[in-house]
Amino acid sequence: MPYTAKIGQSINTLSTPVPVIDENIVAGNIARVQTYMNKIGRSFRPHIKTHKIPDIAKAQLDAGARGINCQKVSEAEVFADAGFDDILITYNILGEEKLSALYALNKKTKVSVCVDSETTIEGLTKTFSPERPLSVLIECDTGASRCGVQSPEQALVLAQKIAASPGLKFSGLMTYPKPHSEAQSEKYLAQTLVLLTGAGLDCPTISYGGTPSLFNSHQVPSATEHRAGTYVYNDRAMARSGHCKLEDCAMNVLSTIVSRPTPDRAIIDAGSKGLTSDLLGFDDFGLITEYPEAKIVELSEEHGSVDLSACTGKRPEVGEKIRIIPNHTCVISNLFDRVVFHAGGKVTRLETIAARGRVW
Amino acid sequence: MPYTAKIGQSINTLSTPVPVIDENIVAGNIARVQTYMNKIGRSFRPHIKTHKIPDIAKAQLDAGARGINCQKVSEAEVFADAGFDDILITYNILGEEKLSALYALNKKTKVSVCVDSETTIEGLTKTFSPERPLSVLIECDTGASRCGVQSPEQALVLAQKIAASPGLKFSGLMTYPKPHSEAQSEKYLAQTLVLLTGAGLDCPTISYGGTPSLFNSHQVPSATEHRAGTYVYNDRAMARSGHCKLEDCAMNVLSTIVSRPTPDRAIIDAGSKGLTSDLLGFDDFGLITEYPEAKIVELSEEHGSVDLSACTGKRPEVGEKIRIIPNHTCVISNLFDRVVFHAGGKVTRLETIAARGRVW
Repeated sequence: MPYTAKIGQSINTLSTPVPVIDENIVAGNIARVQTYMNKIGRSFRPHIKTHKIPDIAKAQLDAGARGINCQKVSEAEVFADAGFDDILITYNILGEEKLSALYALNKKTKVSVCVDSETTIEGLTKTFSPERPLSVLIECDTGASRCGVQSPEQALVLAQKIAASPGLKFSGLMTYPKPHSEAQSEKYLAQTLVLLTGAGLDCPTISYGGTPSLFNSHQVPSATEHRAGTYVYNDRAMARSGHCKLEDCAMNVLSTIVSRPTPDRAIIDAGSKGLTSDLLGFDDFGLITEYPEAKIVELSEEHGSVDLSACTGKRPEVGEKIRIIPNHTCVISNLFDRVVFHAGGKVTRLETIAARGRVW
Repeated sequence: MPYTAKIGQSINTLSTPVPVIDENIVAGNIARVQTYMNKIGRSFRPHIKTHKIPDIAKAQLDAGARGINCQKVSEAEVFADAGFDDILITYNILGEEKLSALYALNKKTKVSVCVDSETTIEGLTKTFSPERPLSVLIECDTGASRCGVQSPEQALVLAQKIAASPGLKFSGLMTYPKPHSEAQSEKYLAQTLVLLTGAGLDCPTISYGGTPSLFNSHQVPSATEHRAGTYVYNDRAMARSGHCKLEDCAMNVLSTIVSRPTPDRAIIDAGSKGLTSDLLGFDDFGLITEYPEAKIVELSEEHGSVDLSACTGKRPEVGEKIRIIPNHTCVISNLFDRVVFHAGGKVTRLETIAARGRVW
């Protein structure tokens, strides 16, 4: 039967492994970031990748966010069906099936996409028409070395191509920056804006993003909006980056000690199917809150191997439950069908991760 | 809408990313391993973790396998509901909710579990009764350093405890061995068997396992059965281990080039949500069959970054589809709700990965 949890149940009695999310920390994270965005006068567009849950996105909008950010058409479908009406898909949409799904999506809600090549623009041009044009932003590689045009001049060429396409509406620029490189991003975006203005092109949106340097967003004055996902739950990597403290991490993976084969080894029931293999620069797979000296040194699919040799005090026993702060919270939301929310250790709700697995 | 594919459709027209499984390679892998097991006169019990699909488990039984292997009670529930009636759960089952689910499972099908501690045995003892006893095997750590008792003497102590428990039936030994350490495993198992026999305990099953050293199973004559999962699809790690050739890898992750930001960089739409971050000792995240000189050097959730600098010939273009042999096939079955099977590049069926996410 599907995973169950009762309202009011102590999370220590839950079947494991399961992600448990602290309602109060989530509310604090949402409020803290929205307050900053209000203070610097910037639109905020949460990325739903971290939670993939319409109820949480609703709380983000209720706090003052404008619109949401999805990465894939299939994710956007879930949120459009749940009533969200301003969705930015920060992805090059290619291929007949996806273009057809995007066309249907654009008919029923306000949707924008990002491009960084003529090929992507050509596909969109063939799909959309002036009766219901599609908003298109250009992705700029301001230093993160992932997608994006490599120069302001390339951005101008694509913007002109979009502007010349009757079914498309040029709507601005988007970048997923290298963390802590605000000056570099600002220079690139400001230069592009000069070129666009010189060519008579209006650029209503400049979308900056990411959680690691979120609180530096004011150092990019050309930006009109900020996108971020991870801030809502936070994780061990965000605490290391200086974005938050470990106490601001809302998600723990609740796990059980299933074996204590030797004095120095514990085996937990969270493996790569519970924690993912994401190291993000750490040399272990998460932080055990009750035993911070212990190290999750190896994962197989259903087992985590914990090295207890550095533990000076009590060591965990078979059957004992532990809470793990994951290295990377977003990827864990993609593993589980359901996630438990709690306040003070009592279950408040069991949420279905509605957009889990919406990868296409 | 959920992922779709039409029978007969060319897989090159599928929406990506998606795992595509070659029917003929699967059939060959099943036949090859079963032939070996028949030859050495050993029972074979496939682990369903690799595919998590009842139809594939049925093909494994039809070929001659006896029973299946699951890792979690929740997985076993899916397969019991699909009609499978001999299920070994190679896991310490702990906690009221899981014990209660195991009790229900044992009422309707033949189920066995594994233990390596007195705590686990005590939980089982409280749950089961002589009217419908539970079969229990002892997990032995023969060198893999995961779960398992550390010596034949410890195994004897637990076997006696199980035999003294009215609701439990001592059924044998189980090990997940360190690959290529057959002599060490055989020594441990044979010594334990001597101790058990000396104590008057019958030991009907000695279950050995794993794909990497599957074809060495005859070097462990004490074993009565072999368990393996990965062999059914195979992957890049199994090819490296010598178990198979790259041509025996049935699963490819079909992906699309979504960006070509620089001459040396391609971005694909398979990130950690499509390939997982499992490196398994490789320094890249999968092998691109069309561009073997290219390296998938970095993954974010929805993007894979490919270094093309070593490519001497043609380089991929935006919109082009590629097929990736994953480092580790089992973990990919846990990411997707559906998987496409094909023969000669034409879709034969779209299977729901029924036990995906059954982690508790």
